[in-house]
Amino acid sequence: MSKSPGRNLERLFNPRSIAVIGASRNVQTISGQPVHALAKHGYAGTIYPVNPKYAEVGGHRCYPAVADVPEVPDLALILVAAARVPQMLTEVGRRGIPFCIIFSSGFAETGEEGRALQAQIAAIAREYGVAVVGPNCQGMIGVTDNVYAGFGSAFSGDNFRHGSLSMTTQSGGFGYGVVILAEESGLGFRHVVSTGNEVGLTTTDFIDWFAQDPQTKVIGAYMEGVKDAHRLLEVGDRALDADKPVLIWKVGNTEVGSRAAASHTANLGGALALYEAAFRQRGMIRVRDANELIDYTKVFESGKRPAGNRVAIVTISGGGGILMADQCAESGLSVGPLTAQSEERLKAIIPAFGSWQNPIDITAGIFNNPEMLAQAMRIIVDDPTVDSIVVINASLQGEIATLRAKELVELSRTTSKPILTAWSAREKFAADAYRALREGGVPRFATPVACAKALAALTTFAQAQRQRAFERTEPVLTLSRPQAKRMLAGRVDDLAEHEAKALIAHYGIPVTREVLATDRAAAVAAAQAIGFPVVLKVQSADIAHKTEAGGVRVGLADAQAVEQAYDAILASARAHAPGARIDGVSVQEMVHGGTELIAGVQNDPLFGPAVMVGLGGIHAEVFKDVSFRLAPLTRSAAESMVRELRCFPLLDGARGRPKADVDALIDALLALSALAVDLKDELAELDVNPLLVRERGQGVKALDALARPHVR
Amino acid sequence: MSKSPGRNLERLFNPRSIAVIGASRNVQTISGQPVHALAKHGYAGTIYPVNPKYAEVGGHRCYPAVADVPEVPDLALILVAAARVPQMLTEVGRRGIPFCIIFSSGFAETGEEGRALQAQIAAIAREYGVAVVGPNCQGMIGVTDNVYAGFGSAFSGDNFRHGSLSMTTQSGGFGYGVVILAEESGLGFRHVVSTGNEVGLTTTDFIDWFAQDPQTKVIGAYMEGVKDAHRLLEVGDRALDADKPVLIWKVGNTEVGSRAAASHTANLGGALALYEAAFRQRGMIRVRDANELIDYTKVFESGKRPAGNRVAIVTISGGGGILMADQCAESGLSVGPLTAQSEERLKAIIPAFGSWQNPIDITAGIFNNPEMLAQAMRIIVDDPTVDSIVVINASLQGEIATLRAKELVELSRTTSKPILTAWSAREKFAADAYRALREGGVPRFATPVACAKALAALTTFAQAQRQRAFERTEPVLTLSRPQAKRMLAGRVDDLAEHEAKALIAHYGIPVTREVLATDRAAAVAAAQAIGFPVVLKVQSADIAHKTEAGGVRVGLADAQAVEQAYDAILASARAHAPGARIDGVSVQEMVHGGTELIAGVQNDPLFGPAVMVGLGGIHAEVFKDVSFRLAPLTRSAAESMVRELRCFPLLDGARGRPKADVDALIDALLALSALAVDLKDELAELDVNPLLVRERGQGVKALDALARPHVR
Repeated sequence: MSKSPGRNLERLFNPRSIAVIGASRNVQTISGQPVHALAKHGYAGTIYPVNPKYAEVGGHRCYPAVADVPEVPDLALILVAAARVPQMLTEVGRRGIPFCIIFSSGFAETGEEGRALQAQIAAIAREYGVAVVGPNCQGMIGVTDNVYAGFGSAFSGDNFRHGSLSMTTQSGGFGYGVVILAEESGLGFRHVVSTGNEVGLTTTDFIDWFAQDPQTKVIGAYMEGVKDAHRLLEVGDRALDADKPVLIWKVGNTEVGSRAAASHTANLGGALALYEAAFRQRGMIRVRDANELIDYTKVFESGKRPAGNRVAIVTISGGGGILMADQCAESGLSVGPLTAQSEERLKAIIPAFGSWQNPIDITAGIFNNPEMLAQAMRIIVDDPTVDSIVVINASLQGEIATLRAKELVELSRTTSKPILTAWSAREKFAADAYRALREGGVPRFATPVACAKALAALTTFAQAQRQRAFERTEPVLTLSRPQAKRMLAGRVDDLAEHEAKALIAHYGIPVTREVLATDRAAAVAAAQAIGFPVVLKVQSADIAHKTEAGGVRVGLADAQAVEQAYDAILASARAHAPGARIDGVSVQEMVHGGTELIAGVQNDPLFGPAVMVGLGGIHAEVFKDVSFRLAPLTRSAAESMVRELRCFPLLDGARGRPKADVDALIDALLALSALAVDLKDELAELDVNPLLVRERGQGVKALDALARPHVR
Repeated sequence: MSKSPGRNLERLFNPRSIAVIGASRNVQTISGQPVHALAKHGYAGTIYPVNPKYAEVGGHRCYPAVADVPEVPDLALILVAAARVPQMLTEVGRRGIPFCIIFSSGFAETGEEGRALQAQIAAIAREYGVAVVGPNCQGMIGVTDNVYAGFGSAFSGDNFRHGSLSMTTQSGGFGYGVVILAEESGLGFRHVVSTGNEVGLTTTDFIDWFAQDPQTKVIGAYMEGVKDAHRLLEVGDRALDADKPVLIWKVGNTEVGSRAAASHTANLGGALALYEAAFRQRGMIRVRDANELIDYTKVFESGKRPAGNRVAIVTISGGGGILMADQCAESGLSVGPLTAQSEERLKAIIPAFGSWQNPIDITAGIFNNPEMLAQAMRIIVDDPTVDSIVVINASLQGEIATLRAKELVELSRTTSKPILTAWSAREKFAADAYRALREGGVPRFATPVACAKALAALTTFAQAQRQRAFERTEPVLTLSRPQAKRMLAGRVDDLAEHEAKALIAHYGIPVTREVLATDRAAAVAAAQAIGFPVVLKVQSADIAHKTEAGGVRVGLADAQAVEQAYDAILASARAHAPGARIDGVSVQEMVHGGTELIAGVQNDPLFGPAVMVGLGGIHAEVFKDVSFRLAPLTRSAAESMVRELRCFPLLDGARGRPKADVDALIDALLALSALAVDLKDELAELDVNPLLVRERGQGVKALDALARPHVR
């Protein structure tokens, strides 16, 4: 996690000169737009159109080839047809140009032939060390330096407002549409880039660079899916360290995974669960529409970070206070009582028909007694049980609105606690107030709902920063088990239960006492050694669903029952799966009580190993109450994944149940994490299902397990 | 449900003359604002200020008392202090004024004294038949007729745009803030009213009137809670009949209910579950922020109603298509394949790098071949498997944008299928296009997310209309069981299990075979009659949790076991609850297999009787997988409440389980509905828990039950 950050992209976004390869004189065409856009928006560097057809493009001297350009440009734009891109990129590489944006379509998005072409340009880029953006993209905007290197609507209007949001988008058309919406809502930008097919620089690379860029305060990413997903934790770490929130708009979530998975873990997970795990582990904030991107950017730009999730609501409208309290609760914020002392002091100044309890309703009484408000706000800001304050000004307008805004700005300067406002007056009747807030860094939202959601995002990010700081102090369990690796090496079939249990036992996860019997007498002897009653289960890598195969008998109370069960199980299994290789019958202790969970490992091709825990049994698939984390886990991360399960109350003594051994469950998850990392080259999937969590002090026990080797 | 609609409120919103009682000459004060606002916004009727202090207010002759006004006004506004309101309202009543808005605060919102004062004005209003709005409200706006009868920001700016949205809000300050936001986003209004404490006219009354008002197309309601909730179904019915969607912004949802409830049904329900049931039963659409209110109004105003939930997505940006498909799936819309014929025809005209499969990506190729788009759209609109079409135009701008918009408008005129657009160009670069869409009734949304959510709202409403039409053809099960009524009449304590089961058995719900034994020998005889093994359970209205009291023994296989269990149960129960009145011990058949659900009745003071079904056992409280409907239920309503359970797959044969007897479950819910209606004056709560649903053909069986009488 302490790897060095990625490539410095300063000269991509602020190049001193740009070669535009395939530049056209027709500004209606895609290849005609970039030269025009660069000039129109005030690019201060040199533009070198490259096209053997022209002597001049848009007033710039045009060169027959990039080799003819009089200096080495920092950036090349390639606008030729797909088939000619390899040659052009080779020329760019030979000329030593460090950055290149390939706009052309006709690559991996179009099928087999395009994929081959894309592989070819990837190889060329590697050979010459060119950092490529695209292909199949719409270009980038270095907003601060007026570098509009692209085509489409975003490049043909006015210059965007300068600001501190940097954004990367995998969809050019849609991404720039979002940028336009954000701009219209008043946001300013630092950099925007459309990444297309990501043959070279990826979404992750840009997040990484934006985290390093001092002028970026907030990072936005419109993401369909990334090929270097395993880097998300590392890059997210650096963003957290740099105090840069990453706002992720992840789409492409409903596609049905077509990969056949053996384990519940893989079935319940899939790419989206792992993306969500990564985002959660590094406090990346998901946004689900443009307004969330806009609102969250506003609140993060203010720079303040709350110390906790306790919110004081101050309102001049009772209705707004109710709505805000609703939304705060829904978003995981706490609207609790202030200190008794604060309440006393507020009671002395707030009208009787108001409320001095949180949510604090100071009522329209502010019209008659403007000082009352400032006094009340001071008390609230100074209350040690308050981490953030939201102020609802309904549609307050005119002079009193301006006064209130200025007061809030003054107050905000005296405290490190975030102060946010929900305020819905018409722009033209509260222009001065709104301007004061904007200039004073007090974020304003049109509704309490938007305000509460933005505060929740801010609070989540600050919490992730604290959590990450704590996790760095925690040891990570690392285990090396060569025997376990050997069990999987070269295997192509799934491990039978007894093998999978042996595998997890190597990492210290308790399993049922059991013996693999290969004849009736051995089964009886095993049962006698273990103690009646026992369970018998057929063992075969070819029989995944033992119960359905008639391969399980429980509660066998004596030798005779064991003998009969042994024969019956083998007969059923053979009838059910005639060709199955049967290892024998496992004789196991019978375990009672406790809560059945499922735990497992998913070793994803994109993300690497991840650990899962969830509710077991038939309900697992119905309620999908599962929690994933990318490995390795710290203890506090394992604990948070258990606590975020909706079924956690079942473990925590709900309805008079005994408390479960959550510590032992966490130990087991840490063991799975160590296993997942140790076996990341050998293991594809692992289920412990059920994992029985018993009463506190009695530990956990794996009742069944399944493992699938990684097959290369 | 076929009750006559509520009071005609035409003259409230469009009064020929208005008395303003307590009018002040100081337009800075609340009592000074209405006369000023009425005149300023162009009220065409006569204003009669009433105030003994003045001869003239705002240029209007002022009268000492309402009795002195030269005609009977249609509407009186009361702006005096709370204590003087009863006298003023009496004068209004005596003068025969039909409508009165009481702005004054200081009533039920302030405590005991205020509540008494409010009861007093309620009585006066009843006595004189005055329809009162308020008290503690901000007034109303008859937008179409320029009647601005209120105070605050909404009354001091420009006139609102005329339109077809009528809105009622319980919070004046916040509600008018939302109106201002909606207006700024381009919506127009018909009527707006702030209802305050609702001593007379309620939110429900206004929804009812808006459903009758021919100029209202869409109804909005900002609702904290209504006292006449039982009328929601009836009013919702009339709105459905009138093709008027009701957009409900329900707040005040997180308050913890403090009422002690005996049953799980009541614990799992509460007011919010019943509001949601009512909304769902009548297709009222919940909105959760101002943007949803705005977006949904836009889509409903277009007037089209889709015939089903099948959506075709047409995009010029692949990224936008992915996002739209995600959001459609999340919102319950279906993005399926078109007919093979349509796909063939599309394939012939769409570029190879596009997609002729839904979502249909026609690509930026439209720039080169504008006719291609019109051809493709025609094919899609004519496809019989398509109910609605969404078109994503990213940030298309300029002339081509105008052309596309006009094409869409033309196409929309030729079909009854809704056509919606997601389009994010800057206003100033697509002004002509946007105007064409607006004038042509093609709704436009800034993002695919907003577009899909609005279409989902539209589809839900249309589906509710069809469902309601079908339900009207269904018989409703009605039962009258005087014996059951007698069991509850005068009871104050809960019914013990055996009594509650007898109660539900009267309505035909199958219960376990069982006998109440009051001595050991009777228990044995009962067991022999029922057949071993049996279950014994203590019966006492004072012991709600029999298992915890040691009052249950299961799997008793012979007479001796029954004798021992009988003694043990009584001993445990007496030790656990020394003073409990014990009816005896119930000897019951032991039932195996099936799925444990919970079903019940909640007879709510606001809503009346409701029926519930949900997942039983320990998971019920963790996952709150329950479904409520207000009684009476039709068969299709009962079926939909079962199908909407997340655990429905468990009943429907998930994971190789046998299919459960869902028909019998629906029968049981219909029986509970009949019971709930028959006993609505006697019963407070009823749980059937567990209700065992067995394999298809084997019916359901109530294993335990609890009933709490309604105590007056």
